Parts: sequence; structure tokens; C-alpha cells
Amino acid sequence: MRIEAISVIPQVFESYLDASIMGRAKRAGIFSFTAYDLRDWTHDRHRTVDDAPFGGGQGMLMKPEPIFEAVEDIAARDEVAPYVVFFSPVGTPFTQAVASRLSQHERLLFVCGRYEGMDERCYQLADEVISLGDYVLTGGELAALAVTDAVVRLLPGALGDDMSAQDESFSDGLLEYEQYTRPADFRGMQVPEVLLSGDHGAVGRWRRQSALERTARLRPDLLEDASLAPAERAFVESLLHNDTQGGE
Amino acid sequence: MRIEAISVIPQVFESYLDASIMGRAKRAGIFSFTAYDLRDWTHDRHRTVDDAPFGGGQGMLMKPEPIFEAVEDIAARDEVAPYVVFFSPVGTPFTQAVASRLSQHERLLFVCGRYEGMDERCYQLADEVISLGDYVLTGGELAALAVTDAVVRLLPGALGDDMSAQDESFSDGLLEYEQYTRPADFRGMQVPEVLLSGDHGAVGRWRRQSALERTARLRPDLLEDASLAPAERAFVESLLHNDTQGGE
Repeated sequence: MRIEAISVIPQVFESYLDASIMGRAKRAGIFSFTAYDLRDWTHDRHRTVDDAPFGGGQGMLMKPEPIFEAVEDIAARDEVAPYVVFFSPVGTPFTQAVASRLSQHERLLFVCGRYEGMDERCYQLADEVISLGDYVLTGGELAALAVTDAVVRLLPGALGDDMSAQDESFSDGLLEYEQYTRPADFRGMQVPEVLLSGDHGAVGRWRRQSALERTARLRPDLLEDASLAPAERAFVESLLHNDTQGGE
Repeated sequence: MRIEAISVIPQVFESYLDASIMGRAKRAGIFSFTAYDLRDWTHDRHRTVDDAPFGGGQGMLMKPEPIFEAVEDIAARDEVAPYVVFFSPVGTPFTQAVASRLSQHERLLFVCGRYEGMDERCYQLADEVISLGDYVLTGGELAALAVTDAVVRLLPGALGDDMSAQDESFSDGLLEYEQYTRPADFRGMQVPEVLLSGDHGAVGRWRRQSALERTARLRPDLLEDASLAPAERAFVESLLHNDTQGGE
């Protein structure tokens, strides 16, 4: 997969994408990432990318001209048209399902705004506008990094040969089950016995129940769309209607 | 505000936090940021921070010992106890209200997991577990950066003397209104006339209506908790029940 990003601070992407799992995936050729400086598509001495809002108000907005020129220029550099993503709190909330959908594209182009926002006309260029969540960031760069991370880790081989992105939060509509590693006793806190039993069937049942319980307790909103067996549905219903016993 | 973070890739924070608005706020002393390498609290030659999960399964988990030692050691370095935040898809969804609440703390300590997750006992150290959204990232570092960004920009002076974090998405429970800058005509796309009128009352009314319309169209789920005047409530209800006219 080929990922490109347009930003006024193109130097912020590299250190994260060269580290750890992303770094290995990049070196293995699973994805490439190119960051472009939006100011390269300005034509004045000050390389201006922002201007005051019509109608007054605080702060500055991203001007349309450099953004249109940059997106059109970069898109035309290859015969595969990029899927163009903008970031805004106004966009579609990013979810694991969106990450999975984006991972099917051959070429993604991220456009990162800064300042108080972007001239509304810029969004004409967007195939999709994504919001990382219901909070405000100073720009789209961290959104571009988070989406890159979430998407790349779904690509075959990105997590290593023997790992996959199955069996984790949201893969089946539930939060992930509780996990434990050594020592079995840490400062008096014990690992649940069943996990030490070697009984794979029992471990599997415990994990499924842990996922159901956690989701019912912490994120009951997720249960509506989760795919549950009838007995599981009855189990979480009993948890939800028995919550007078209080949270953990 | 003092922000600290524990990570196995402590080198990934600096380039973002030294740039643009975050960089200016840091140089102005509005916040400080220190990243610690978790491996400094290991005691074996390989500086091991992860181990296989009990009960089997793919991937590796973060071990409890280095995390407990690191958090306790760093917390004790100052008489102001840090508010300790872990990141997990299982956590409380991060919102602008959470950012606002975190911005009241004098000292924040972020603990960033990696790999397939963390031994469940580690969360005993957390004052709060936060989820950036309903998606899976390869680690907590981007969550720590996003929370830092969202929190710091709310601190007095962070956005510059003449700017504030009011009048933007989520500040009043609505998405922000559409914004435009020069040119008034860009490739045939016109700025709404009212914004060129100089009539501040009319501009204010147009912006409020734009925010209401956008929220009703794109994120009707936000309207329930938004503080609206009775006439505004009636207006959005009419939009919601008249959506046979289609999207934008």
C-alpha cells in the first residue's frame, strides 16, 4: 500500500513510522509513506497557506488554492488515483470497520489541516472526511498517523508471520478479553486459575465470557451490533439487567 | 502543566511536540513533556518488557514488573502525584469533555502499551483508562500524543493571545459551522453572500444555522445533549423529520 500525506509540518511523521511495528512493515515493503510540504504549492514569498475567515472571527483558515493544487498535482503523479481522505471533527467517526475498508485501497492520500480549520470548498476534493473522535486536535497529522497505523496493521504480514489482527477488540464487535502473563502471582495479584490449567476448551470459554462481561460492563453500546449466539445474548442481557450489584 | 510518558519507543514524541502550536506552547512554558524508556526499569540483559500470554494465543503481552516499577519510580520524583492514564480500546472513549477535565491536572503520566496488550494487573496503576476511539492501534503512543494535543490546546495561551478554544466543534455540543476565506470566488465556487455582507448579526445567525444543519445532517446523535434554544430545537427537529429531501 502506498500512503501519502500533505501537511505544513511534514517532518512529524517519520519518527513514528520508522519505529517498532510500523518501521518493520515499512522496511518490509508492506507500505510506503511520503509526506509532502503543502507550502511547496504556494506562489508567494511568504509561502502563505492560511487567511482570515470571511465574516470575522478568531484564527486563520487554510486557503483553498494550495490544497487544490497539491492534491491535483500529487494525484496525477501515478496512474492509480489515490483515495483522498481529509480529517475534521465534522467527518465520519473513525472505527475499526473504516480501517478495514481503507485497507483495501492501493493508494491513500491524506490531507492534514491546521489552524482553525479549512475553507469549506476544500472538502470537494475529499473522497471521505474522517473524524478520529469527538475531540478537537490542532491539526490532522495525528489523525493521519493513527489511521495509517490502524490500517497498516491490518495488511497481511504487518504484525509478523505468526500474528494476526483477529481475536482483538472490535474484531467481533466486543472488547477483548482480559490477558495475563508471568508471574502467576504478582504482589499477591493472581492470574485466574483456568488460564494455568492447560485446558484449551476451558480457556476459550473463559475468554469469551471475559469479553462478554467486559463489554457489558464498560461498553454496553457495542452489544447491539455484536454477533452473539442466543445463549450469549441471554447472558449479557442478564448482566445488563442485574447491574444493581455495581461495577467492578 | 507537566506531562510525562512511559513507552518502549520514547523517541517518537519529540518531532510532533516540537512543531507548530505544540512547539510554541512548549517553548512558552505552557507545558513540559518528558518521555521515559520503559526498558530502563528492566533488570535482564535483554531488557525484556513482554512475555507470552497465559492460556496460549498469538503475540506478546507487556509484563507487569517494569510497568509497576516505572510508574512508582516516576511518580515519586515529585511531591505532586501524577494523574496516571493508560490507553486501551477497552477504556473510556476520549471526548472533548474528557480533554477539558484532564486539562485541570497539574501533572499527567501516560503509560503506553505495545504488542498485543498488557497484563490486566497493570491497570491497577491507572487513575483512568482512555480509548481514543473504537479502533485498534499498535500501541498507546499516538493516543498519548492526541490526548496531549487536545489537552494542551485548552490551556490558557496555548493557541496564542488572541485565540481561544471556544466557538469550535463540541464546545457547545454541535459541530462547527462552515468556514470560508479568500477568494470569494474560487473556480466558480462562491462564498455564501452573507459572510461578505459585513452584517455581524446576520453572520452570527447564519453560522448558528450552519452548525445546526451540519450537526443534524452528519451527527444527529450529538443533538440530544446539545444545549439549544426552543426555536433551535424545533428547527433541528424539522430537519430530522424532513430528511426525505436527501443529504447535502
